[in-house]
Amino acid sequence: MTYEAPLFTIPSDGTPCPDHPDDPGLTAVEKWLLDQRDHRRRFGQVFRRAIDEVLDGQRTGRYDLYIKEGLGRVESTEKTYLGTKVEIVTRAEFDLGYGSPMDYVIAGQHVDAKFTVGGNWMIPKEAMHHICLLMRADDRTGAFQVGILRIKPDVLTAGPNGDQKRSVSAAGKTRIRWIVQDGELPDNLLLRLQKTEPETVRDIFRASDDYRGSGNGGQLRVNELFRRVRGRVVDRTTVVTVATQHDGLKRARDARKHLGPEGIIVIGHLKPYPQIAEQLGLPVPEKGSFVSVKLTELDEHSTRRSTVIDGVRYGIWAEGDPTCEAPGIKG
Amino acid sequence: MTYEAPLFTIPSDGTPCPDHPDDPGLTAVEKWLLDQRDHRRRFGQVFRRAIDEVLDGQRTGRYDLYIKEGLGRVESTEKTYLGTKVEIVTRAEFDLGYGSPMDYVIAGQHVDAKFTVGGNWMIPKEAMHHICLLMRADDRTGAFQVGILRIKPDVLTAGPNGDQKRSVSAAGKTRIRWIVQDGELPDNLLLRLQKTEPETVRDIFRASDDYRGSGNGGQLRVNELFRRVRGRVVDRTTVVTVATQHDGLKRARDARKHLGPEGIIVIGHLKPYPQIAEQLGLPVPEKGSFVSVKLTELDEHSTRRSTVIDGVRYGIWAEGDPTCEAPGIKG
Repeated sequence: MTYEAPLFTIPSDGTPCPDHPDDPGLTAVEKWLLDQRDHRRRFGQVFRRAIDEVLDGQRTGRYDLYIKEGLGRVESTEKTYLGTKVEIVTRAEFDLGYGSPMDYVIAGQHVDAKFTVGGNWMIPKEAMHHICLLMRADDRTGAFQVGILRIKPDVLTAGPNGDQKRSVSAAGKTRIRWIVQDGELPDNLLLRLQKTEPETVRDIFRASDDYRGSGNGGQLRVNELFRRVRGRVVDRTTVVTVATQHDGLKRARDARKHLGPEGIIVIGHLKPYPQIAEQLGLPVPEKGSFVSVKLTELDEHSTRRSTVIDGVRYGIWAEGDPTCEAPGIKG
Repeated sequence: MTYEAPLFTIPSDGTPCPDHPDDPGLTAVEKWLLDQRDHRRRFGQVFRRAIDEVLDGQRTGRYDLYIKEGLGRVESTEKTYLGTKVEIVTRAEFDLGYGSPMDYVIAGQHVDAKFTVGGNWMIPKEAMHHICLLMRADDRTGAFQVGILRIKPDVLTAGPNGDQKRSVSAAGKTRIRWIVQDGELPDNLLLRLQKTEPETVRDIFRASDDYRGSGNGGQLRVNELFRRVRGRVVDRTTVVTVATQHDGLKRARDARKHLGPEGIIVIGHLKPYPQIAEQLGLPVPEKGSFVSVKLTELDEHSTRRSTVIDGVRYGIWAEGDPTCEAPGIKG
């Protein structure tokens, strides 16, 4: 199929002349998006949320979008749906209107949403002459991009006759106006650990292997999570994915009594936890997130960072320190 | 494509002989499912949750799975994905294992999940000789069914050559062993209202039409919801769909101060609300649900159902009663 090359004509749907050298319509969309408060962080959250909702870790234990076969696989129908979910979450996040025939109305322009977890976007022929909001997120590298592009024949790859969709050509990519070119996705902790220390993830999910029954298997896995992943923020999605059950956050709170005898506390967002985190130089978790740490009693002469709980001075346990029972903390 | 008719042979994957007149494998799955505590209610919740998650009313304002075009439409990718979501939610709800190549392992049998919102199920040829868990939910009628069927050529429609999927034949349907044949889905309040009093739904969603801005538009719609839909449980999904914003439940709580001057109270789950609901003969809402009611002051001789708030006796307002300001209630 060949596309009709526009000759400085105004398309019948009234969008501004797309071949105007300045493309004021494209510029208006670009400015509107760049003007959105905190748009970089918000786009990152949009992709994180959409991916996490499709993975549905609380029900499936999945954290890796890229597994195609066997246990934990993500079906192709789910991958396809992810694009729709990104479209929905983006519209809600930025309060974008519904366009027709395109997805959105931004700054008076009809804009089509295109999302990919791969390296390119498939552009349907209906998008010709329209503006596309090109979104890409790679959960393996943690990178994301958002850009806009006016679709014209010369920004697309040459498709075979009858091809309904083409991708953006190399030349086309140079013409993308970037809204966020080097975005960083909010962390997918389990996927990152799977890459850097796969045995940790394996041990966490196997912690319940010998347990038969419902409910407490999740507790054993969450215990192992906080035993192994210390000093770092463990977010809500990670907790509910490891728990793989209703009310995974309760498993995190209950881990405190299980891990106390090993000297491990699980820092939450309620007092006095934030102060303990600050005094020990640890990140302070938000609601729904946690930071676990193994404590050791310090003597009065220690110059290490410390926190005093019930009159006892504690620091972060390091190799060689004695293990003590963790203090009970009412958070 | 013609399927090979089994001749009392045991399939190579080791499932019990499917043509045994008693089909002990099928009977084992049937018994297991029927033995699940409260399975009728739980299957209904599974379908309600899966449908509601795909509609994503909080972000989209959608409540009708069957709209195919225009504003509020549900894309075909979303419809396809709904089957996957039902499979996931069912597995999580009943703690079913992962089968291979089929979806589940139930009572030692490999079982494939098939869901439809239509009148029949598409059966892939890979399911031949296997047991299918056939699930159907119709949000328009509120009906759902769950049954199991051993797939054999004689339970399927005759497909054209090369057809990869066939549906269950009329004769096949008579051989379904029903787990729940006459299930009732938890209510989709907005969809039901759309059928019985469409002007109410229209007015609720139009309540913010003249308002421009973010945030309070949702408040205006939620106010109209509780103004118009009184004396009935308004569930969480309905509230967040009408609000179409983050924290829709706060809009429900805030509706109290907006509707107080009109004599309307919004009954929640916290004290003293449950008692008020009981005294007035209204349903008592669970957490996240609400019941609104317009009150009128009753004199001491009234024999109508009543509740006393701050020393004043109130009943449910009816045509002809004076309108009073609603009492302030700390719930």
